[in-house]
Amino acid sequence: MEIQAPFFAFNPKSYFYGEQLLALAKKADELAEKYPYMTIFVTAPYADLANIAKQTKHIIVTAQHMDGMEPGRGMGAVLPESIAAAGAGAVFLNHAERPLQLTELVSAIKKAKKLEMKTIVCANSIEEARSIALLKPDILLCEPTELIGTGKTSDEDYIQKTNQAIKEIDSEIFILQAAGISTPEDVYHTLQLGTDGTGCTSGITKAVSPEKTLGDMIEAVNQVYKESEGK
Amino acid sequence: MEIQAPFFAFNPKSYFYGEQLLALAKKADELAEKYPYMTIFVTAPYADLANIAKQTKHIIVTAQHMDGMEPGRGMGAVLPESIAAAGAGAVFLNHAERPLQLTELVSAIKKAKKLEMKTIVCANSIEEARSIALLKPDILLCEPTELIGTGKTSDEDYIQKTNQAIKEIDSEIFILQAAGISTPEDVYHTLQLGTDGTGCTSGITKAVSPEKTLGDMIEAVNQVYKESEGK
Amino acid sequence: MEIQAPFFAFNPKSYFYGEQLLALAKKADELAEKYPYMTIFVTAPYADLANIAKQTKHIIVTAQHMDGMEPGRGMGAVLPESIAAAGAGAVFLNHAERPLQLTELVSAIKKAKKLEMKTIVCANSIEEARSIALLKPDILLCEPTELIGTGKTSDEDYIQKTNQAIKEIDSEIFILQAAGISTPEDVYHTLQLGTDGTGCTSGITKAVSPEKTLGDMIEAVNQVYKESEGK
Amino acid sequence: MEIQAPFFAFNPKSYFYGEQLLALAKKADELAEKYPYMTIFVTAPYADLANIAKQTKHIIVTAQHMDGMEPGRGMGAVLPESIAAAGAGAVFLNHAERPLQLTELVSAIKKAKKLEMKTIVCANSIEEARSIALLKPDILLCEPTELIGTGKTSDEDYIQKTNQAIKEIDSEIFILQAAGISTPEDVYHTLQLGTDGTGCTSGITKAVSPEKTLGDMIEAVNQVYKESEGK
Repeated sequence: MEIQAPFFAFNPKSYFYGEQLLALAKKADELAEKYPYMTIFVTAPYADLANIAKQTKHIIVTAQHMDGMEPGRGMGAVLPESIAAAGAGAVFLNHAERPLQLTELVSAIKKAKKLEMKTIVCANSIEEARSIALLKPDILLCEPTELIGTGKTSDEDYIQKTNQAIKEIDSEIFILQAAGISTPEDVYHTLQLGTDGTGCTSGITKAVSPEKTLGDMIEAVNQVYKESEGK
Repeated sequence: MEIQAPFFAFNPKSYFYGEQLLALAKKADELAEKYPYMTIFVTAPYADLANIAKQTKHIIVTAQHMDGMEPGRGMGAVLPESIAAAGAGAVFLNHAERPLQLTELVSAIKKAKKLEMKTIVCANSIEEARSIALLKPDILLCEPTELIGTGKTSDEDYIQKTNQAIKEIDSEIFILQAAGISTPEDVYHTLQLGTDGTGCTSGITKAVSPEKTLGDMIEAVNQVYKESEGK
Repeated sequence: MEIQAPFFAFNPKSYFYGEQLLALAKKADELAEKYPYMTIFVTAPYADLANIAKQTKHIIVTAQHMDGMEPGRGMGAVLPESIAAAGAGAVFLNHAERPLQLTELVSAIKKAKKLEMKTIVCANSIEEARSIALLKPDILLCEPTELIGTGKTSDEDYIQKTNQAIKEIDSEIFILQAAGISTPEDVYHTLQLGTDGTGCTSGITKAVSPEKTLGDMIEAVNQVYKESEGK
Repeated sequence: MEIQAPFFAFNPKSYFYGEQLLALAKKADELAEKYPYMTIFVTAPYADLANIAKQTKHIIVTAQHMDGMEPGRGMGAVLPESIAAAGAGAVFLNHAERPLQLTELVSAIKKAKKLEMKTIVCANSIEEARSIALLKPDILLCEPTELIGTGKTSDEDYIQKTNQAIKEIDSEIFILQAAGISTPEDVYHTLQLGTDGTGCTSGITKAVSPEKTLGDMIEAVNQVYKESEGK
């Protein structure tokens, strides 16, 4: 599945698992079918990947991390082949809650390319984003660590600087801006500031109705798409 | 499922995944059904746990590690609830290839008890084993790190010292000795030296026929059981 | 130097270094000379150990961590022999800001004993403290992680439970309670609750006059000593 | 002190400390005085930095690692200010034995620049080297991990590819090639292949006379310098 912008990443981290997460993934899957011009990523704990992949068709089921290793010893590691076989089509790497050594990041990106998994790589400064851009991830998420979980979104100036800094290195990399997204309005505004995609964790997991909020956020992405097509 | 000794742990680490691992787990499951007085553990990469659990009944599907955390942020972590919901009935902790900080180990063991998962905790010295014994794991694997993967088994003296040191602290903890097990004969001899259980990784994963070797090893466990019953 | 209770640990972590830290260490040294029945530990960044050790005589210069390794490769590690040669007479291990894998902790304690350095080992739960007690550290600091830096001290009940749990395992281990010590009064009260020693970080480093607060805290230790002798 | 090529890095890691290391640092210092057009780096354990810096004048005393942090909590960390105050003029970062998360590497390089310390940053693949080059280290050491400690040097082809890949990103970065340097001849040949500097660990620490071998290697650097001047 190729990535189509604007895209949306629902990243429930370790908040949800099992049936509750499956229900949300199915909801995202319905919307992904309805809006085929928009890519929707849904992350899941490793143990949930297979089941979600089996019961959805239109979303990209995404792992929260993997190790850039070959099959072998690695007790307790996250073997790329195992998550690819389970149906993961993408993987987050270098998230602030699971940072990678640079050497590990290089090998994890290589491994993902070999297994044809998309990579969503996180940076928490513009310098870091530029270094990562040279490694040709599919998507770069550039998020000031200090904003994670605060409900404050990155401002226009930060978003434009980031876009420019990354596209200068490699114009084909998609940019994901997701800092502080907590409402459908945040989704709409952040996309309008010129990023390729956005996403959300606690804005959905802590919502009164996670399913409704997830749906409304995806509708907000669709609205941006429609308006841009209208031009 | 309660642990019954002698027991056997097939721990393919990250050597196998997907269909190949499922086939071996099914083989182990048949033997676990045939020998109901013996517990068989089969570890799997996180992403394989759900599928193996769904397609087996008599083995204890075992995770290679988990984080002692609560549902929440923890991007990329191994959420205990997610592997328990996927059907894991036990978890390895503190393996030499995935060592834990003591604080993490304490919380992971607590969490496993809460979720009613069995814990197989590794130590690589007798001092370390005694400290861990105080934390009341179900099974303690005491394996001198320098023997892992060498094909050399722990000798009688080491096994007896370990048993004594651990049982002195807590006589209810099962002891697993698996250093250097590479043939069914090693399984037989190690169990005869007075350990509660044994296990194997590369002796099976690198065998000409992993399935045959797995089967022969479990038969060797059964032979020890039969002989001990005969007395 | 043998440890004499009540003792006091001034642990400026990475707040101070160079001349500023040296001046405080000299102040502590004067007081240690004045009160020879009381042990005073002063921690320092690795690079400051040698200079402080050279310019003091009565305090125990203490490293904030070390690796339980032998001389050899270990680029960037903290070689125990190097800090012992620099004059460190004690070392903190397993602090919540520098937690150790259990295997590392076992080897670091062994190494400290070999080099005749005192060990101050941190635990952040009573279970963890008991496991560590089996490893025979000189001093056990049992501090609920959630209190570090909050200015709240552990209460009487917690202190007594901790004391009892540890002394049950090994009655020769000294107990350090330092959670939330921010004033000389906290020092006085915590020692009166029956701990062997106490200590302080930010209560001193963030004081208007760190030197005065350090002095006052050590005077509070002396007062407890005097009162206990008076009995 | 500005870096002058060809340069030499004597990196005894954790093999030496105290008096033995001081004697070798003094020997290097004599040669650095004799050959003022050549920079000599000598690494030391953190606790040895101050003493070596005090007793030498012409070498750049170099730390084996540091954390890119500000003064504050960081118990057990390597505070940049503390090693700079002790006299370290340079720091190795991201060595294969002490790899850094990319985020940590970004902040450590920034901090070194602020403290006017030179950075020698290690990469273990050409991709990694290019990413690091964007962060503007002073020296980049690009060394295939698999050659460390083997006594095999990188070949001409590897060296030229590395040089080209890095200089393409930033032509001002010096390049250090030190894989497998074990004799003065290796020093000579590696420098002749067109690298800016070289260095050695076990070729010196395990030599019959580390002092003689250190001296001979520096003489080999001088010979390359002389020959290049002669042209």
